[in-house]
Amino acid sequence: MTDSAATDPIRQASKPYDELLKLLRDAATLSSVQTLLGWDQETIMPPAGAALRADQLAGMSGVTHRAWTSPRIGELLAACEADGAVRADEGALANVREARREFERATKLPTDLVEEMARTFSLSIDAWKDARARSDFAAMAPWLEKIVALNRRKAEFYGVPKPTDPGAGETTVLYDALLDEYEPGMTAWRVERVFKPLRARLTPLIAAIASAQKRPSGAILETGAPLDAQIAFNRFVAEAVGFDFNGGRLDVSAHPFSETVGPGDIRMTTRYSEERALDSVFTTLHESGHSLYEQGLPKAARFGQPLATYISLGIHESQSRMWENFIGRSPSFWKWALPNAARIMGPAFAKFSLDQAYGAANLVKPHFIRVESDEATYNLHIMLRFDLERALISGDLKVKDLPGAWNDRMKSDLGLTVTDDKIGCLQDIHWSMGAIGYFSTYSLGNCYAAQFWETMQKEMPDMERRHERGEFAPTLAWLTEKIHRHGRRWRAEELCKRITGQGLGHEALVRHLEGKLKPIYGL
Amino acid sequence: MTDSAATDPIRQASKPYDELLKLLRDAATLSSVQTLLGWDQETIMPPAGAALRADQLAGMSGVTHRAWTSPRIGELLAACEADGAVRADEGALANVREARREFERATKLPTDLVEEMARTFSLSIDAWKDARARSDFAAMAPWLEKIVALNRRKAEFYGVPKPTDPGAGETTVLYDALLDEYEPGMTAWRVERVFKPLRARLTPLIAAIASAQKRPSGAILETGAPLDAQIAFNRFVAEAVGFDFNGGRLDVSAHPFSETVGPGDIRMTTRYSEERALDSVFTTLHESGHSLYEQGLPKAARFGQPLATYISLGIHESQSRMWENFIGRSPSFWKWALPNAARIMGPAFAKFSLDQAYGAANLVKPHFIRVESDEATYNLHIMLRFDLERALISGDLKVKDLPGAWNDRMKSDLGLTVTDDKIGCLQDIHWSMGAIGYFSTYSLGNCYAAQFWETMQKEMPDMERRHERGEFAPTLAWLTEKIHRHGRRWRAEELCKRITGQGLGHEALVRHLEGKLKPIYGL
Repeated sequence: MTDSAATDPIRQASKPYDELLKLLRDAATLSSVQTLLGWDQETIMPPAGAALRADQLAGMSGVTHRAWTSPRIGELLAACEADGAVRADEGALANVREARREFERATKLPTDLVEEMARTFSLSIDAWKDARARSDFAAMAPWLEKIVALNRRKAEFYGVPKPTDPGAGETTVLYDALLDEYEPGMTAWRVERVFKPLRARLTPLIAAIASAQKRPSGAILETGAPLDAQIAFNRFVAEAVGFDFNGGRLDVSAHPFSETVGPGDIRMTTRYSEERALDSVFTTLHESGHSLYEQGLPKAARFGQPLATYISLGIHESQSRMWENFIGRSPSFWKWALPNAARIMGPAFAKFSLDQAYGAANLVKPHFIRVESDEATYNLHIMLRFDLERALISGDLKVKDLPGAWNDRMKSDLGLTVTDDKIGCLQDIHWSMGAIGYFSTYSLGNCYAAQFWETMQKEMPDMERRHERGEFAPTLAWLTEKIHRHGRRWRAEELCKRITGQGLGHEALVRHLEGKLKPIYGL
Repeated sequence: MTDSAATDPIRQASKPYDELLKLLRDAATLSSVQTLLGWDQETIMPPAGAALRADQLAGMSGVTHRAWTSPRIGELLAACEADGAVRADEGALANVREARREFERATKLPTDLVEEMARTFSLSIDAWKDARARSDFAAMAPWLEKIVALNRRKAEFYGVPKPTDPGAGETTVLYDALLDEYEPGMTAWRVERVFKPLRARLTPLIAAIASAQKRPSGAILETGAPLDAQIAFNRFVAEAVGFDFNGGRLDVSAHPFSETVGPGDIRMTTRYSEERALDSVFTTLHESGHSLYEQGLPKAARFGQPLATYISLGIHESQSRMWENFIGRSPSFWKWALPNAARIMGPAFAKFSLDQAYGAANLVKPHFIRVESDEATYNLHIMLRFDLERALISGDLKVKDLPGAWNDRMKSDLGLTVTDDKIGCLQDIHWSMGAIGYFSTYSLGNCYAAQFWETMQKEMPDMERRHERGEFAPTLAWLTEKIHRHGRRWRAEELCKRITGQGLGHEALVRHLEGKLKPIYGL
């Protein structure tokens, strides 16, 4: 396949490195086909195509697994690790280090397990859509049993990771082998070190807000607009923050997501409600954040290389939250967005003041649905899922007991009584698509975003004034320069230290939420 | 991959046959991924994704070529050919015979040539879109040079086929190796045996029509409708003729087509003009004809088997022309369609009489553009392309001389002076996507359709009265019973003999065109 080495002198200095990168690009190209199959399934595939799609995904997962685990890659990795030219180049070293990690992980899994997972997860997504529509947990339970068993088998092949910080008391469990896939190097023990104090600070804040006398109105959120106008406004916003429609798409799906097919083909989705027009904007900003990260990675030149790959889902989520919450729920953003909403979606939006829009964007109210939750209570949703999925993997929680455990936690953590699994444990796609170990990265992303945001405010004192005028390019340029363009050169926490001077922590997020919400609620 | 042998006793009687069918299904599943990549490229891929798409198609063509040419398939074919259980079953024998044919053809091509063709053809489609938009033949010429060279190389690997009818004077040329891919067993010599007398009969008919005193009005074709209403009407028509939207899609593309991803996933496209609403209906009927054939093939149970695969492009085209022309331009169809057009697309269509609609649907007028041509002159377009592409492969025509040769023929055959390659030799996608040897199947399809139509009229005397009431199901059932459900059990001409008692010929098409057009034009 096409692969220009012209821009990378190390590739000319080291033959094994050059060949390794060619093989990685070829493997990534095949993997990108799988991504497109997934995108198509979630957006436009006809319903009767589900069985074929599961077979296609199974077949392709075998093909790509063989490509990523080819013995030649193992030989080339060993040659690169011994190659002076590679060892002298920080970028090449990072590429080889991360490719070694992926190769070791991939070779641990037998191809038939990989194919079985791909087929099962494709079919279980469709089973979940049905089960959720009918709120029928019993129909989903056998699929979840399979999914837990497959994830446990996968984790056993990977093996329990060694703690990186045993001196500090870090211990590891089987679940960590799954978490490590989404957040390299992360363990449940390390997540807890962030989640526990975060929870301790959020719980009183949320309680104080619940009993606050002052409360913003959500009326602007209940303002509708015709679909065409909403689509136009969402495209306008996505373009304004920097999404490149020449190399991407914005479509509709029941569960919005962003997928990178590959260089020049980055696709995101949103969803529209005729009655609540602004909901789509936050979703689009969120997915734009993911897409802008992907557009900022040097994929055209380095497709398939770790240096052109996102660091972790936590860092990915820090980018989506940055645009959705830190920028998208700020007064400066709404100073720009509100008149544009009125211009594109109709004069109904001109009736509201900036204060009203800003207040509505920051309403805090416990909600049954994670993706409709506010910035503060959202994290309690994550902690609930993080605890339950760990218990499913350890065996402490049986699938049949999941609805009960879920509902107990919703009551104790958010004060809500779940009467229907559709708005309870059947609401999310993640477990149904086989992703166990994924959820905590959402709140890790919130923490990272808060830490980056504080640095951005310091380093770009005019940033928010520029946002008032719709000038988002300098902000995107900063994120690209500091984060995107480096790919997987560093691990998440090292990147955070390099940018902010601090490791991962909960304090910046608490400062952000308290600093914003206390004035809004008169606390 | 999933593959139930439960319904096929031969699979239980013969282990090699059972294993062969499993491998064919796996290979077809991988090929179906390539089809989806092509569909996506033509409908919704972002422009900047073109380079990646070429790499994906190249990578996948290597993967699928290796799957189809696996030595294990060769072993199993030999075992099946010697297996008594297989030899005693007509269906199994057909499967093995046709799988052998495909295997022999595929193994003749080296994988690197297959990959090179896939990459080149994917990129040249995009180059052609640009070149056509700018009417810039010079930009397209180097691509066409490559395409002709690659096709010649491919043909040389295949080798010149042996004539099947040397006693009748049949001779074969290199071009036949290409034609044979689209129309198994067909040769240029055999095509000429049909085209020459067809041309001899069409030319005076078209000339008489051109100077006829009586001429129907095309006013209804120049009636517009809002896009939404057109989409609704096209969906209504596609559903009425039997297209299953649960297992398929109808989208928009610049060049309408129908693609079978696989069982349960059959996708077609059409195109809309706000000013000429009915144009889309003929396109949709045409693509529906292709899709109905694919939906009638026993793909769910037999995916990957020749018994679940269309016979040839000629037979495929007979089905699209059946619905577009024989049914879709008949008075009985318009008796049903016209009031529905008025109901769904607006009262502007209620102003026209059935006679006016029928006359307009059968307007004959030489046109620069093949796909906008009428049923009669269309075939002259095909003969022009058939002659020119043979000359390109033989070397008698150089790519640089193509526009001149094209324009000469347009003048002599259709009386039109081409002033712009956009409406001349750059108009079709086929050569740009690497398909040389394809065009003649369109007119072969017209001939087959006419032959089937005469038999249908005899065997279903109430057919056209049913069409007046929108009852197309018995017609589709007949086509499914006689043609679709058999897959590739017989070659095209044998199927035609079984159904009509006659081999391929031009007479039925001439009878159809003269019988319809002479009264309309008062000849």
